[in-house]
Amino acid sequence: MSIEADPSVTADPAALDAADPLASFRRRFVIPDPDLVYLDGNSLGRPPLRAIERVARVATEEWAGQLIRGWDHWLEAPRRVGDLLGVGLLGARRDEVVICDSTTIDFFRLASAALDARPNRRCIVTDRANFPTDRYVLEGLARDRDREIAWLDPDPIDGPSVDDVGATLAAHPGDVALVTLSHVNYRSAAIADLPAITALAHDAGALVLWDLSHSAGSVPVGLAEHGVDLAVGCTYKYLNGGPGAPAYLYVRADLQAELRNPIQGWFGQAEQFEMGQGFRPTAGIGGWLTGTPGMLGLAAAEEGIRVSVEAGIDAIRAKGIALTEYAIALHDAWLAPIGFTLGSPRDAGRRGSHVSVRRADARDLTRRLIEAAVIPDFRAPDSIRLGLSPLTTSFADVARGIAILARLAGSEPAAG
Amino acid sequence: MSIEADPSVTADPAALDAADPLASFRRRFVIPDPDLVYLDGNSLGRPPLRAIERVARVATEEWAGQLIRGWDHWLEAPRRVGDLLGVGLLGARRDEVVICDSTTIDFFRLASAALDARPNRRCIVTDRANFPTDRYVLEGLARDRDREIAWLDPDPIDGPSVDDVGATLAAHPGDVALVTLSHVNYRSAAIADLPAITALAHDAGALVLWDLSHSAGSVPVGLAEHGVDLAVGCTYKYLNGGPGAPAYLYVRADLQAELRNPIQGWFGQAEQFEMGQGFRPTAGIGGWLTGTPGMLGLAAAEEGIRVSVEAGIDAIRAKGIALTEYAIALHDAWLAPIGFTLGSPRDAGRRGSHVSVRRADARDLTRRLIEAAVIPDFRAPDSIRLGLSPLTTSFADVARGIAILARLAGSEPAAG
Repeated sequence: MSIEADPSVTADPAALDAADPLASFRRRFVIPDPDLVYLDGNSLGRPPLRAIERVARVATEEWAGQLIRGWDHWLEAPRRVGDLLGVGLLGARRDEVVICDSTTIDFFRLASAALDARPNRRCIVTDRANFPTDRYVLEGLARDRDREIAWLDPDPIDGPSVDDVGATLAAHPGDVALVTLSHVNYRSAAIADLPAITALAHDAGALVLWDLSHSAGSVPVGLAEHGVDLAVGCTYKYLNGGPGAPAYLYVRADLQAELRNPIQGWFGQAEQFEMGQGFRPTAGIGGWLTGTPGMLGLAAAEEGIRVSVEAGIDAIRAKGIALTEYAIALHDAWLAPIGFTLGSPRDAGRRGSHVSVRRADARDLTRRLIEAAVIPDFRAPDSIRLGLSPLTTSFADVARGIAILARLAGSEPAAG
Repeated sequence: MSIEADPSVTADPAALDAADPLASFRRRFVIPDPDLVYLDGNSLGRPPLRAIERVARVATEEWAGQLIRGWDHWLEAPRRVGDLLGVGLLGARRDEVVICDSTTIDFFRLASAALDARPNRRCIVTDRANFPTDRYVLEGLARDRDREIAWLDPDPIDGPSVDDVGATLAAHPGDVALVTLSHVNYRSAAIADLPAITALAHDAGALVLWDLSHSAGSVPVGLAEHGVDLAVGCTYKYLNGGPGAPAYLYVRADLQAELRNPIQGWFGQAEQFEMGQGFRPTAGIGGWLTGTPGMLGLAAAEEGIRVSVEAGIDAIRAKGIALTEYAIALHDAWLAPIGFTLGSPRDAGRRGSHVSVRRADARDLTRRLIEAAVIPDFRAPDSIRLGLSPLTTSFADVARGIAILARLAGSEPAAG
């Protein structure tokens, strides 16, 4: 008897896969080794077949064939793909998102612009559990601009609450320039209350900058609906854009002229190819571009984003909840009895599309899992992060991955 | 009789091609339309066959096959390819160059770091004819840091002379933080006297930052030999790295710890994947990385750079001189009589690998050339820029391109 089929333990994964309305999307991706259990699509998503084809076409037909004439259409790509992502998955309006640079660079630029726009306020609010690159960039900005970081130190599973943020804002009245958090925490998957925190920050006169790296393509964001000021994120996780695929930034339409891009490059210049004297930014979101965009990476990202747009964020979200609920049921059945604890919120409404399970020997277990052809991510000090990317992860993957983890970790849940 | 074979006008291009020691390198590139005369390899170089193959392999074997495990080797790529370029073509030492981000971003970071390192000096020296993105970035930095740009306004063909720079330094004694110029001017191809200007800047206590975009892969640079502090450049021109291929930066070894990367990202963090509190930069050039590098673009760039390394910069330089000398001879024979003037230095030692020819109707002529399957670049207001990329441009290309230009421009140098 295989664990996957044992109804006495939990639901039958084959039945769950058979009932999955998104099951057919898995066939749109290149999956060379179907026996590999890949639970890290939230770190690097699998390649859509069309991304592979598109990259080859850009290299041959466009680069080799069109040569410099390719820029006649490449120039539009950062905005075209930005709209595909922004309107299709993030709830932004047209002309509010562009694809460019890396998350780190975009985060620097938007955080820097926000500080410039609030010159008389000293404080930046973020949390100790935020993604490292965001924290490191902010530390540099605080030092160079003589600002101060008011660190939230939230519960490691639930992340920063609205009350945490409210208390910090109240402790620095009129002095907070910027509130910046991850929408979904990279370790615990906790979803921050974006609408309420955005409203609180605005009430305090601060700007708000959300890092969407772990939410874009996995949970709805609603940038326009909630009046978000600024956002950034990467396209290589749930958006399946490829290793180091370009990032994106969002600047709400009415802020695009009010805020200033601190890195004035030729791709943000009006009448760029006149190459004239004096920087005059392109009006609108185009003024937030900087240098020459890499077209191979951007083409792959476009195809990755397109698959998620076609699936629809609501269907993706529904499957993400189903996958994580299933993983938590398996954790409770097989892992909790052997010393694991859950490192993610139990409330599905407060959890993104990955699940962390914790035990002191997580680092070593992750290594052994990879040897056993199950690929999660280790996150120091004690978390095994199981990324359940809705378009490419099956319920059978979840069952098999957690069964193998349970066996390696000392239990024998499977009869076989 | 075709113009290319007319020895009464100038040298026989077929004979020049037959005697070209680098002629075989053209076969390493994908050239789908051999009748197209491509004179814009200094804007976007042609793809090496191995770059096309490599990109396909990264997409399938690495992204699809290795998935997140690809980072076991991708992490090293920015430094590995940086060394290939730095040691192989720029005259840098190992561990002084990394491939990352765009030229604009890298220029911003190094210029910003230079200003931080000279906090009590107000002046930045650059020239009005410098490439636009460099000028725009400096204007932003000057505004945001309360600095002043001392603009050189050099002869448009010869570019800034050593005397120009010396006079400007003398006019701002003890007050120049940074001297930054392009090694080869993007319009005229004038080579700035890098050794002498670097020495002058150092004598004045300033740091020097060279933009190598139009010299890397076309003329030797000698970064270490001449004690250059900082440099940046792109890989999509003579280095044939692909559209929007990633840029590179050079920081001389002894400055890597003295200067500070103003954008502190997780790829510059020591023990990056511990994701701990507090930014501590990686020692050495690795501390100048920021965000996640795009691997598709970087892989193509590596193959592009490799072809130039294999050809050798001295052989490339010799052919660049021969091609541009030939183009100037044809200009003098066919274009000067119909109102063109040369927009590049006549002294081959002071000229990179492109030639600008000027006439008031250059914009319209460029459009008509492209319709006639000859692709140069227009540079406002009156220059047609003929890029003669040594590994992919033949003498026959030069002869045919200039013959067609002469015919379109009102002369009939060819009998046919």
